[in-house]
Amino acid sequence: MTAFAKAPELEVSYWLNTDTPITLESLRGRVVVIEAFQLLCPGCVHHGLPQAMRIAETFSRDDVVVLGLHSVFEHHAAQDRRDVLEAFLHENRITFPVGADAPGLGDIPRTMTAYALRGTPSTVLIDADGHLAASHFGRPGDMQLGAEIMHLVERSPADGLAANLDEIPAAHDSGAGYCSDTGCVPGDSREDTRTTE
Amino acid sequence: MTAFAKAPELEVSYWLNTDTPITLESLRGRVVVIEAFQLLCPGCVHHGLPQAMRIAETFSRDDVVVLGLHSVFEHHAAQDRRDVLEAFLHENRITFPVGADAPGLGDIPRTMTAYALRGTPSTVLIDADGHLAASHFGRPGDMQLGAEIMHLVERSPADGLAANLDEIPAAHDSGAGYCSDTGCVPGDSREDTRTTE
Amino acid sequence: MTAFAKAPELEVSYWLNTDTPITLESLRGRVVVIEAFQLLCPGCVHHGLPQAMRIAETFSRDDVVVLGLHSVFEHHAAQDRRDVLEAFLHENRITFPVGADAPGLGDIPRTMTAYALRGTPSTVLIDADGHLAASHFGRPGDMQLGAEIMHLVERSPADGLAANLDEIPAAHDSGAGYCSDTGCVPGDSREDTRTTE
Amino acid sequence: MTAFAKAPELEVSYWLNTDTPITLESLRGRVVVIEAFQLLCPGCVHHGLPQAMRIAETFSRDDVVVLGLHSVFEHHAAQDRRDVLEAFLHENRITFPVGADAPGLGDIPRTMTAYALRGTPSTVLIDADGHLAASHFGRPGDMQLGAEIMHLVERSPADGLAANLDEIPAAHDSGAGYCSDTGCVPGDSREDTRTTE
Repeated sequence: MTAFAKAPELEVSYWLNTDTPITLESLRGRVVVIEAFQLLCPGCVHHGLPQAMRIAETFSRDDVVVLGLHSVFEHHAAQDRRDVLEAFLHENRITFPVGADAPGLGDIPRTMTAYALRGTPSTVLIDADGHLAASHFGRPGDMQLGAEIMHLVERSPADGLAANLDEIPAAHDSGAGYCSDTGCVPGDSREDTRTTE
Repeated sequence: MTAFAKAPELEVSYWLNTDTPITLESLRGRVVVIEAFQLLCPGCVHHGLPQAMRIAETFSRDDVVVLGLHSVFEHHAAQDRRDVLEAFLHENRITFPVGADAPGLGDIPRTMTAYALRGTPSTVLIDADGHLAASHFGRPGDMQLGAEIMHLVERSPADGLAANLDEIPAAHDSGAGYCSDTGCVPGDSREDTRTTE
Repeated sequence: MTAFAKAPELEVSYWLNTDTPITLESLRGRVVVIEAFQLLCPGCVHHGLPQAMRIAETFSRDDVVVLGLHSVFEHHAAQDRRDVLEAFLHENRITFPVGADAPGLGDIPRTMTAYALRGTPSTVLIDADGHLAASHFGRPGDMQLGAEIMHLVERSPADGLAANLDEIPAAHDSGAGYCSDTGCVPGDSREDTRTTE
Repeated sequence: MTAFAKAPELEVSYWLNTDTPITLESLRGRVVVIEAFQLLCPGCVHHGLPQAMRIAETFSRDDVVVLGLHSVFEHHAAQDRRDVLEAFLHENRITFPVGADAPGLGDIPRTMTAYALRGTPSTVLIDADGHLAASHFGRPGDMQLGAEIMHLVERSPADGLAANLDEIPAAHDSGAGYCSDTGCVPGDSREDTRTTE
């Protein structure tokens, strides 16, 4: 996967905060920011989602579309519930569209696997032509993110931020998933899932 | 209710992070701090619970016992679930005992009503003799709270912090419950509950 | 003054953190960020200067040059001292070039007057062609600033952020200067200075 | 030096924010908090002094007296100036009495040496009987500090917080002084000063 790779289409079970299902295809011409989170992930509540809301406030919807992606890879029984997610979005005042990442073969949901996300929170940037431009796990700075997004708004995708992808560390090796101050990462089932893909 | 009033006994459906149910009666001789929260209350995740964990780290368990109280007054279907609460405590690394406030006649659970809590997060201080010493809604400062708790550890309850109770503003009047940066407060059903009590 | 106005040349008594004096003329082709501060301005120490350092870390020096401007408009005897400024820059680990804004006819230094800055901290953005693109007083967000700077890096100055200039509130009216959480603003002498200009 | 040691009397060149010079002797019966700082020490401006102001707001002046101590051990020419200190206190809205630590034989001022402070910011707690109860370098938490101060307000000095003194790490060994996020520490001249004492 390179900065020029087509961003995989979203695989979502259902959408909240939108009347009609959303596809990346339908958003061509606009930069798309995907904030992958889990409602019980402290780093997502503390940092990732508030930052995604600042992105939505900073940029015009004509230029940048912010989407939430509920990518549950642990505590499925507790988190994979539409009513809990709806209440979570209400309490956290999240108004941008949020899709429930479709269940995968293992614990890792399908879109999270397709984008090889390390865990939550993750922030994915897709350029106006639908190419994957950057993927950040954890806590990227507001200034860096503001600059990267504006870069995509102004530039042709050919100049996409390939560097960011190279910077992504290899997936965590330990068998057990965990949450740190940075964020939450899944355990072994992830690798299983990948081999089966 | 004055600073000299006996603190009402906890009415809890079940306990987590403890092998045996906890009663205030059994904690006589130690100061008790009750952190009332809802797992979907942003102010609780951002402020109240981390502060309660700092209390548990700062004081000796011989002197001060910190208890969590899951007082759900909204989004009952989403929050009144043991598996969701267990996952929440795990992800937020909360290790002190947490009791599920018992359902009341209205939306307000029984212990929350007995203590006339305005909402979540709320921090209740009980002295070594089991008297209610202080009740804070929202975001009391760490220094103020550290001083109040040490005051109770050192002093006889007769000198309890009556002032704090006097300072508690009247319950919010609007019919609708809401969450602000300060915390979450319930709507009308609360008054109903009170009259039926 | 519009977004297309030429940015006034800097009027500086002496430079620190650089071997040779700096002119905007010499920086044509690169975006210039000027962080105006006073070493005794709390908002500058807490917010403005750390943010300017984040700008210098986020953008390539080939694209963006960050300059500090010590614009003293109060406590001249205490702040208009090269040795104090040198020690301040050392203790705050400020490594980008800093110029001492040249004394004006009143309390307001010459460059601060030429740019009609409201107070400190102020962040001024100048495009690659030397046109004034934006001027922020107080605490602009990192994401907004990162986006604005990248916009200037990518775009031709004709599309400069005129909006930001329009957004600048009128200068503070009170006769007395003051420092708030937002920043420090000068008193009447400022208007005097302007009329004499 | 133990928790029972008499706190050395302050050696101060001049006082600000008070009409009459202050001695610890004159404050017997009240807990005294000494905040040692340097006006160009970022950790003091960011953390130590705001925390000292919170102490002054939290406790009654009848119980606790907060004093600032300007202990300059570096950049003497820039910081050892009454007009700069006066302007600094004004801009940072510091209203409690501040004494200028008297110059010592080396770079370290006399009171800083008498209390064996590691650097700035340092927070010293003295009980109502004038005994040294605790000394913190860097960033003690608000809750811990609020509890320690209330402990001294309630308790007899015999129970002073000796533990805190034991916890103080040995003085920094490197020859050169430096400022970190924690605070500023002096270089070799300190040891020289000590041997000459």
